[in-house]
Amino acid sequence: MSLLKKLKELNNFSDKKNFFNLVCCNTNVGLVHRKIVSLIVKNKLPYNIKNNNLIFKEKKKKLLNLTLKNTCDLLLTNKIIKEETGENFPCVLSLGKKEYFILDRSLVEYLGIRGYGVHLVAYIKNKDNIKIWVPLRSKTKRVEPNKLDNTVAGGISAGETLLQALFREGYEEASFKEKTLLRAKQVGTISYTWRNKPYSLRRDTLFIFDLELSKDTIPKNNDGEVSKFKLYDHKKVRDKIQKTNDFKKNCALVLASFLIRRGLINIDNEKNYEEISRFL
Amino acid sequence: MSLLKKLKELNNFSDKKNFFNLVCCNTNVGLVHRKIVSLIVKNKLPYNIKNNNLIFKEKKKKLLNLTLKNTCDLLLTNKIIKEETGENFPCVLSLGKKEYFILDRSLVEYLGIRGYGVHLVAYIKNKDNIKIWVPLRSKTKRVEPNKLDNTVAGGISAGETLLQALFREGYEEASFKEKTLLRAKQVGTISYTWRNKPYSLRRDTLFIFDLELSKDTIPKNNDGEVSKFKLYDHKKVRDKIQKTNDFKKNCALVLASFLIRRGLINIDNEKNYEEISRFL
Repeated sequence: MSLLKKLKELNNFSDKKNFFNLVCCNTNVGLVHRKIVSLIVKNKLPYNIKNNNLIFKEKKKKLLNLTLKNTCDLLLTNKIIKEETGENFPCVLSLGKKEYFILDRSLVEYLGIRGYGVHLVAYIKNKDNIKIWVPLRSKTKRVEPNKLDNTVAGGISAGETLLQALFREGYEEASFKEKTLLRAKQVGTISYTWRNKPYSLRRDTLFIFDLELSKDTIPKNNDGEVSKFKLYDHKKVRDKIQKTNDFKKNCALVLASFLIRRGLINIDNEKNYEEISRFL
Repeated sequence: MSLLKKLKELNNFSDKKNFFNLVCCNTNVGLVHRKIVSLIVKNKLPYNIKNNNLIFKEKKKKLLNLTLKNTCDLLLTNKIIKEETGENFPCVLSLGKKEYFILDRSLVEYLGIRGYGVHLVAYIKNKDNIKIWVPLRSKTKRVEPNKLDNTVAGGISAGETLLQALFREGYEEASFKEKTLLRAKQVGTISYTWRNKPYSLRRDTLFIFDLELSKDTIPKNNDGEVSKFKLYDHKKVRDKIQKTNDFKKNCALVLASFLIRRGLINIDNEKNYEEISRFL
């Protein structure tokens, strides 16, 4: 699949009419499919409906968190969610700002709440050549097993700062020490709005980091989520994100951004360059 | 004005209902305010109206170019355009692709046709400190006199490639030689959709270049459009784009992108970091 097609698939939200605004304390915090709204109404969870809005009745965080827990259970019972992840994610309008409530990671995309991740690309530079450390996802992973990934990638949990998430994920996925990770450069974000399942809406913002490594720093996985790391020449990475589906889709975007920022994907070697970089 | 506010001003298109699609050879190529559509209809220029579409009757480029010339004259007569620029711009869906017709630069924003520019930031690096070459626009410039600008910035004319535009503007504005400009890195694009006058819509895509210079390369203006060049520390540039209106608005965006890509604007020193980098 072409890089542009991957990008468009991650930005394929075109049926707003099927979604209700999720409102908490007079603020739009999410988007919920009408199928899920009807389940919530039928089961009399503490929400109000007004025009196209699904409004939390509760104001206090403790009670809101309970409503979220009950909403998660409802979707589990109705087999919309397969299982809880046990990871708590925050509902915020932007990272580090007011936290409205927390919810299980599995529920985030079914309430169309923005999810946050850290994505790090570790590379080795030799004159003008760049090689990138690419993990192969474990074959036992629930989501996209056996796909290629960014060197480090994971969600930002409730109560974590950006740097804490980077430290945690960097250690779990690649055994990088805090001292090494502090040299990583924060270089921007990538966001997309993705209708990936019948009733879900993934609104993701990925915080992107670049990390130049010396030749003798070899990433090593700690949590069993990666089966091995490979060192790919940047041309091989470009080829794979332009012509294959070997990379997990959102990771292809992160690598496209990395290669564009270095002039390694440009108007001469990518026919959809303009449209791709307009998205990123 | 805050950086986020500048960014929002350049993305303030919220009255789509007032605009007709401009259609050429079955393709949407622009967006035209209904006031201008009514002038075109009244004066019987060769367009058709169907639903919310303003459709060129002509198919051949030569006849289309004549229609564009007549449309420009009509807007001049009606004092919507003050004067022609004499610069021909292309109408394309993306740079280097099929050219539908050419038109005077002054007309581009009144037909809501995408305009293209090259923006280059030349900098000097000394260990981790970065200084940026900043031109002060001449006090006699028609648009935004006396404002600060990117080192090199200009439109891409009809018939020009990206590199030809970079060579031309780089020489005119800063006396950079082709050999120097070939070292510039193409690092992405920035796009915005800006309602800046009652009947206009600026849909701009800027191709961004970074150029690291040695200490002894001093930019020197050739075309009288710059009154002087100053070398600013990156912190001073950051301060100015975050807190003042000293920079031309779209140039503040280009510099924000430059500083974000280097981690010099980050979540710790820009409170709207997430929203800003989501736009860029």
